[in-house]
Amino acid sequence: MPEPLFQRVALIGIGLIGSSIARVVREENLAREIVISTRSPQTLARAEELGLGDRYEADAAVAVEGADLVVLGIPVGASEAVAKWIAPSLKKGAILTDVGSTKASVVAQIAPHVPKGVHFIPGHPIAGTEHSGPDAGFATLFQNRWCILTPLPGTNPEALEKLSAFWRACGSNVDTMDPQHHDLVLAIVSHLPHLIAYNIVGTADDLETVTKSEVIKYSASGFRDFTRLAASDPTMWRDVCLHNKDAILEMLARFSEDLAALQRAIRWGDGQALFDLFTRTRGIRRSIIEAGQETAAPDFGRHKA
Amino acid sequence: MPEPLFQRVALIGIGLIGSSIARVVREENLAREIVISTRSPQTLARAEELGLGDRYEADAAVAVEGADLVVLGIPVGASEAVAKWIAPSLKKGAILTDVGSTKASVVAQIAPHVPKGVHFIPGHPIAGTEHSGPDAGFATLFQNRWCILTPLPGTNPEALEKLSAFWRACGSNVDTMDPQHHDLVLAIVSHLPHLIAYNIVGTADDLETVTKSEVIKYSASGFRDFTRLAASDPTMWRDVCLHNKDAILEMLARFSEDLAALQRAIRWGDGQALFDLFTRTRGIRRSIIEAGQETAAPDFGRHKA
Repeated sequence: MPEPLFQRVALIGIGLIGSSIARVVREENLAREIVISTRSPQTLARAEELGLGDRYEADAAVAVEGADLVVLGIPVGASEAVAKWIAPSLKKGAILTDVGSTKASVVAQIAPHVPKGVHFIPGHPIAGTEHSGPDAGFATLFQNRWCILTPLPGTNPEALEKLSAFWRACGSNVDTMDPQHHDLVLAIVSHLPHLIAYNIVGTADDLETVTKSEVIKYSASGFRDFTRLAASDPTMWRDVCLHNKDAILEMLARFSEDLAALQRAIRWGDGQALFDLFTRTRGIRRSIIEAGQETAAPDFGRHKA
Repeated sequence: MPEPLFQRVALIGIGLIGSSIARVVREENLAREIVISTRSPQTLARAEELGLGDRYEADAAVAVEGADLVVLGIPVGASEAVAKWIAPSLKKGAILTDVGSTKASVVAQIAPHVPKGVHFIPGHPIAGTEHSGPDAGFATLFQNRWCILTPLPGTNPEALEKLSAFWRACGSNVDTMDPQHHDLVLAIVSHLPHLIAYNIVGTADDLETVTKSEVIKYSASGFRDFTRLAASDPTMWRDVCLHNKDAILEMLARFSEDLAALQRAIRWGDGQALFDLFTRTRGIRRSIIEAGQETAAPDFGRHKA
């Protein structure tokens, strides 16, 4: 058996992402010891029941002691509080990373508190499901997905390589970019889709001319696809909106402009404009399937043979 | 073996829906003979290669001769032309139905041409995938889905019951409602979701600050879900927009209003409003899963164990 990448990994937060990391670390033997800490005593107890770690600590500062990898898997809005809490206990030479969906805000919240000699490298694995909590994780979540790291100027190259090796060992491909660009990219590929999904489900929920029972019965005609994203963790998504405001508002504005043009085409019966838009969007799905980021099975593979 | 429901069924149009009907009719022995007609000679030849029917006719008027069930599976904008074409050849006592996604327009296009003694009962099976064409169909497409019939005043009850029995034999539950209400319901559960999906994929495609390759690589964070609906048949969806204009514009207006409120909550950092919206939308997905209209597996079951 090869030597594990890390001696001790501390997971602060044990939701969908944290618990998936715990499982793959165990399965791939990426650390000798897994220490888990999370704010809620119930969740910590559940993580222990599931046997996700080797030690369970209510105090995050105790959990990170002696750890050579610390992963924050928490709502992005909690970053500063947790950074302040654990900073004095971080081991010299440790790598501190996170898995948050926004990066510029996380950097601003955490970087000022990181002690000298600790390698802070923000990260974001582009993977997930609509479920949350320690039961929702699974070891293959990161397989064939991308993990984006947003190292700050002056980051130690060895630490960066070690964290990259960790994510590759979790099954991911690794990209690096600066935090601002990350936030712009994620605003269009993730944040806007979630907002749109939440919004349309809210609109349907408010109608007085169409009953909720009708929405549910006939949802297979398209609507149900949106309900998946709209079932995601509310706290996480509130924080994303509050912490990537500028990029999200920019993408929302573009989306709304385009929607106004589409609305106009419908109102004026411009069949050619509609046909042209509906044709060019087909190619993107094909590319996503070819890139291995989506199943080729019709209907996401919902129909089993 | 019980007597089939129909002696001869004529399928005009042999795309995803038509070819799925052909397959289930064969599998469940719902008719003695299946006659297929479609406009494109290539598609008709392909249907024959696939062995979907017993006879293949280039002329839809010839195809419907002697049929006791005629099903139009064509873009809704083609309804009037096809109705005029086949009307003189329809057998007295035959049931004429369609599978179009809008109903008031289909009624307006077809009803004036239906000869006395032919039972015209518009219909819409709420089922589909993003694929199209005769290869895309499968016999279980309608299983556990709903089929909406929108009978006109004075519809013969026996004909209505026979068509309902046909759809139940295809695996569907059957509902009836008036065409206007159908169009309103479908505008929110199907037409708006498709438009939103087409629109966001278009917005992403137009960005200059985020590359197409980035959109593709990181699409698993939400965006890819939308590309499925946005890969649907462009001709069909152009026609839906042109033929359910009023209901779609009404739903678009409500959606845009709600989106403006959401945008405002983000701009002003109203975390409570965001949290409240993101919380109440979770329940609808749960109801859809409980109603058997969606898989409970995370990520639509994309992750295979």
